[in-house]
Amino acid sequence: MSTAEPATAPLFDGDALAELAASLPPQAAERLGFRLAAAAAGTAERPTDLLAVIAPGAPPAAAAPVTGLVLAARQKLLAPIAAGRQASAARLADLRAALAARNLTGFLVPLADEHQGEYIPPAAQRLAWLTGFGGSAGLAVVLAERAAIFVDGRYTLQVRDQVDTALFEPHHLIDAPPSRWLAAALKPGDRLGFDPWLHTQGGLAAIERAVQAAGAALVAVAGNPIDAVWRDRPPAPLSPMQPHPVAQAGEPHEAKIARLAAGLAAEGLDAAVISAPDGLAWLLNVRGLDVPNNPLSLGFAILEAGGEGRVRLFTDPAKVTVAAHRHLGNRVSVEAPADLGPALDALGAAGARVRLDQATAALWLHHRIEAAGGTALAGLDPCALPRAVKNPVEIAGSRAAHVRDGAAIVRFLQALDADLAAGAVLDEIDVVARLQAARAQHAWFRGPSFDTIAGAGPNGAIVHYRATPETSRVLAAGTLLLLDSGAQYPDGTTDVTRTLALGTPSPEHRDRYTLVLKGHLALGAARFPAGTSGSQLDVLARAPLWQAGLDYDHGTGHGVGSFLCVHEGPQRISKMPNTVALQPGMIVSNEPGYYKTGAYGIRIENLIAVTALPAPAGAERDMLGFETLTLVPYDRRLIDTHRLSAAEIALVNAYHARVLGALSPLLDGAALDWLKAATAPISP
Amino acid sequence: MSTAEPATAPLFDGDALAELAASLPPQAAERLGFRLAAAAAGTAERPTDLLAVIAPGAPPAAAAPVTGLVLAARQKLLAPIAAGRQASAARLADLRAALAARNLTGFLVPLADEHQGEYIPPAAQRLAWLTGFGGSAGLAVVLAERAAIFVDGRYTLQVRDQVDTALFEPHHLIDAPPSRWLAAALKPGDRLGFDPWLHTQGGLAAIERAVQAAGAALVAVAGNPIDAVWRDRPPAPLSPMQPHPVAQAGEPHEAKIARLAAGLAAEGLDAAVISAPDGLAWLLNVRGLDVPNNPLSLGFAILEAGGEGRVRLFTDPAKVTVAAHRHLGNRVSVEAPADLGPALDALGAAGARVRLDQATAALWLHHRIEAAGGTALAGLDPCALPRAVKNPVEIAGSRAAHVRDGAAIVRFLQALDADLAAGAVLDEIDVVARLQAARAQHAWFRGPSFDTIAGAGPNGAIVHYRATPETSRVLAAGTLLLLDSGAQYPDGTTDVTRTLALGTPSPEHRDRYTLVLKGHLALGAARFPAGTSGSQLDVLARAPLWQAGLDYDHGTGHGVGSFLCVHEGPQRISKMPNTVALQPGMIVSNEPGYYKTGAYGIRIENLIAVTALPAPAGAERDMLGFETLTLVPYDRRLIDTHRLSAAEIALVNAYHARVLGALSPLLDGAALDWLKAATAPISP
Repeated sequence: MSTAEPATAPLFDGDALAELAASLPPQAAERLGFRLAAAAAGTAERPTDLLAVIAPGAPPAAAAPVTGLVLAARQKLLAPIAAGRQASAARLADLRAALAARNLTGFLVPLADEHQGEYIPPAAQRLAWLTGFGGSAGLAVVLAERAAIFVDGRYTLQVRDQVDTALFEPHHLIDAPPSRWLAAALKPGDRLGFDPWLHTQGGLAAIERAVQAAGAALVAVAGNPIDAVWRDRPPAPLSPMQPHPVAQAGEPHEAKIARLAAGLAAEGLDAAVISAPDGLAWLLNVRGLDVPNNPLSLGFAILEAGGEGRVRLFTDPAKVTVAAHRHLGNRVSVEAPADLGPALDALGAAGARVRLDQATAALWLHHRIEAAGGTALAGLDPCALPRAVKNPVEIAGSRAAHVRDGAAIVRFLQALDADLAAGAVLDEIDVVARLQAARAQHAWFRGPSFDTIAGAGPNGAIVHYRATPETSRVLAAGTLLLLDSGAQYPDGTTDVTRTLALGTPSPEHRDRYTLVLKGHLALGAARFPAGTSGSQLDVLARAPLWQAGLDYDHGTGHGVGSFLCVHEGPQRISKMPNTVALQPGMIVSNEPGYYKTGAYGIRIENLIAVTALPAPAGAERDMLGFETLTLVPYDRRLIDTHRLSAAEIALVNAYHARVLGALSPLLDGAALDWLKAATAPISP
Repeated sequence: MSTAEPATAPLFDGDALAELAASLPPQAAERLGFRLAAAAAGTAERPTDLLAVIAPGAPPAAAAPVTGLVLAARQKLLAPIAAGRQASAARLADLRAALAARNLTGFLVPLADEHQGEYIPPAAQRLAWLTGFGGSAGLAVVLAERAAIFVDGRYTLQVRDQVDTALFEPHHLIDAPPSRWLAAALKPGDRLGFDPWLHTQGGLAAIERAVQAAGAALVAVAGNPIDAVWRDRPPAPLSPMQPHPVAQAGEPHEAKIARLAAGLAAEGLDAAVISAPDGLAWLLNVRGLDVPNNPLSLGFAILEAGGEGRVRLFTDPAKVTVAAHRHLGNRVSVEAPADLGPALDALGAAGARVRLDQATAALWLHHRIEAAGGTALAGLDPCALPRAVKNPVEIAGSRAAHVRDGAAIVRFLQALDADLAAGAVLDEIDVVARLQAARAQHAWFRGPSFDTIAGAGPNGAIVHYRATPETSRVLAAGTLLLLDSGAQYPDGTTDVTRTLALGTPSPEHRDRYTLVLKGHLALGAARFPAGTSGSQLDVLARAPLWQAGLDYDHGTGHGVGSFLCVHEGPQRISKMPNTVALQPGMIVSNEPGYYKTGAYGIRIENLIAVTALPAPAGAERDMLGFETLTLVPYDRRLIDTHRLSAAEIALVNAYHARVLGALSPLLDGAALDWLKAATAPISP
């Protein structure tokens, strides 16, 4: 494989940005700074990363005016949200006054945006602004006299640290859910408000039952009352929309639009609202930087059924650069976000049958279509399945991205081993920075695909751990390091976990690692008939742990996008039932683990692509299997070869030979020597 | 283990029956004969079996008057149904006239009774009466000018044989479903009738959409129009209700009623309608003979919530013997079937919230409750989960039943081997009779739990095969015999499949058998955490076949009752998603297979009970596994030991040692010698 790669335009052109910033009057420039900062906020913990994300490859001088703007705006923008706890009493009082003025006795404050996205922009961080809570999932309920905040098991300690519990009673989201609290707290006649932009059709069912049982009413509110009292609320993010070239996407967006429009017509539908930004990105072959890690340009679209298809895109026209306009062409109209409502009214008035995504479409969309006389039909986002099935160009891109990513990780691992051996003292935050730096050496690196998890010793057992200055542990001999990271490249998204021995591992470390590895190998080598779902295969990854009375409390595999979200549906490999059949071209992760609270964590993760297998002799069915995309050695020091079967040893050796073959053209010197040693065959 | 067993009353007392028959005036006696015949019809293909089923252990003289009555009535009763094809034109004309008189342009004729039972009594065999079709699943649609019959892949040949296709167009139930045919055949304004007693809430969804799309109407009809023109329609079955003693049930029915009543109250429900006869049988600890194979007494019940619970049982009082009345006690009232409707009206008028089983409750029940002002809530039959989780007495009973059953099968297998070796010519029907005779030697045998499947050579590849005089194949050397059978005993229900080599098996036979065995062993030895569903484990049984590009097109395991239905929910082991967690005490089958059309079939089936496992060293989770209940050797001649791992060989040898230990006290002579040879250890 050649290491040469085609030149590509940077995702964001530093020169163009600088010109734009210079051309604006001061107030507009500050506003632009705010909106760029809103887009970039959270992407990078350190200001020096910001420029690399916004304008990779741009000379610093060219991007300087913009960088200045953004850095100034950033602090101004995030500080009031971070001040949530101290300001909480006053903000809560303001909110209660706003509720009283609306004749409401309560209000739901979820951690959600209008897209039910995994990452939400600062303008939607109402829960953090109100309570100070900084976790990634939660819900507050504010009543006239009482308020409560509900978080899951990951955040039961954190919530008491960040939130004034004299104002918000902390509760466990699952064990003591909001519906139960509301059933006791609500009085007959109470009116509990909610913002229909922030909830889905199914999401409110339990709360609705509790409200009804209490003789109270659940009221959809037009205009979020928090926004009315949030004086310094950040603007919506503004990042330039960037065409995603056919050279990477593999299919022109016009072709995608035409086949989806035909599909909708065949189902007897008139249109679909595309409310998930990754659906929009896939359908239109565009990317953006509106939220961290996921290269999305936030917006909504209406896909009209039939003919060659037509898309009405509702997004801030300021995002749509000249290049993007030229790319979108005449099959896509760009309209202001405020025009979405009237467009749905027109569909409704025509009696249209409109598909909405069952899992993520805001209730507001349902209400608006139905109120206008249309029929809103919950189903699967029409982009979801075609997006999940990668075309040959996307699969080839993913392979190339994984070679590039594997070489960067090997360089990082070799240096880490060498420095630790030389007595260097490194902590988890250093690991995160070194890994990012290793990846950033390649011009195609577009930032992490999620915040890197580097968990040393007991921190490895915290499944959603992120190192902070307060928690970051030094890498100590005799412990394990769990390292889960991923990168965005224009041709693919990566996600890989390796667990590393620091010094000499204990027999227990090796025993547990080997059990996890056995499950990981079994799933990777699975052969299964067409029509099989990921839920059916999940047990293959768990069975070796189950035999030892062990398990892990997370899914085994999630879908992964193509230069898109690292968590993507509709397929998954999980204990939870999922009837989506695995199809050739789908990419999923293979990541069993084992976690010993207070001690260490183990996870081994590769991305794997579903592929049609050549039929073995005598085969009667069309069989599928997996091609492993990730190319990083397992840690040989942690493998107890006596516990592996001959077949399992052969799988490890074949994989390591492949890793060596694929990465060695990109490596030399100490890194290549390290790789040769790391991929040397194991024997029983 | 002792072979002595406690004495038990015969399920049906021959003396009492004879007295009853003698005391009746001639017309009433004939009527009784009809109804007993309706109950017995289909249970036994041969008249000589009838007495054994009705009055096991009774001296033939004592039961003779009843037997005479029944045999005379039986012929009179079944002949008109069997004459379906010849009489079809006249019957169809009669039905069309009856529809026209009701202002209907069409009618649905499903193969179903009011309980959605697996076996339906003669009075409900409307499809066979109208069309002549004798299969176990199907649906006819009769319109004014056209009619069609829909059957699945098992019956596409049979339907053309049994049905006049000039009257009924034959179609494939799945590939060309009734909804599609109706969409084309219906005209605007058409009124398609259906009997709401014979359809469930979910069952009509596709047809309802098709009817609406055609601008026609789907009309629930009071009183089935077929019954109006079916002049010699058999009566409802009448078999005496028999108490199921606590010695076998393990829990008094009063205790069951009380805990279910408390459960309903805790769910905010006022009552549940028990419409599934196996729920009724479990709840009240009663059994009957109203349908073949499943020891059921058909009826409905209303279980009232709260307090100690109360059950209103709606069934023909003639079934409720003095012993049954005494057993039921004062917590259960017996009311006529016609009183069910008024009882639901009263519930509705009181605004009651009533649980109906989501899968099997007739639409009629929903309609009646809702029309009276009540709320019908579809959910799981409250009996289903408690019935599935066997108590320790039931598990002990199942173990005893399996020892008894295993010994009978070994005696049969030994004699079969010996006779074939001596040159006997035997066919599939002989096999069925010999196996039944071997089981019937035990006084506790209460008949088969389903019609035995004995498939020699190519017949083994027909998954739902039943031998008939036309199809029965001679057992020939060089082929396989697939033998799937089960028995009812007062303490347990059995279901076992063994595949036997006739003469010397081919290498392919042994290869495929060994693959099936590997999956069967893996599932039987599974260890899994509490909360795991059968769907999660299904792949364990398939993976070895999948590796070879093979599979089987049926589920891997079904629940099994305790002296009840051999197919029981709600748990199952299947590719289809099922979220019911396996719990200690649940009994399921473990039956992977492989089928080569036109050549042979292989299935290996044991019943296995979910059991809590002792924690292995270092275990962190509560782990469950299976106890294998079935005790019959695998056919060593079909095992390719070179393809088994050491662990798999150990599993086979440990199982065979257990079989030998458990059964040898019940065997002697040639049968014991045969068993010793059949369970001798295998080695690689």
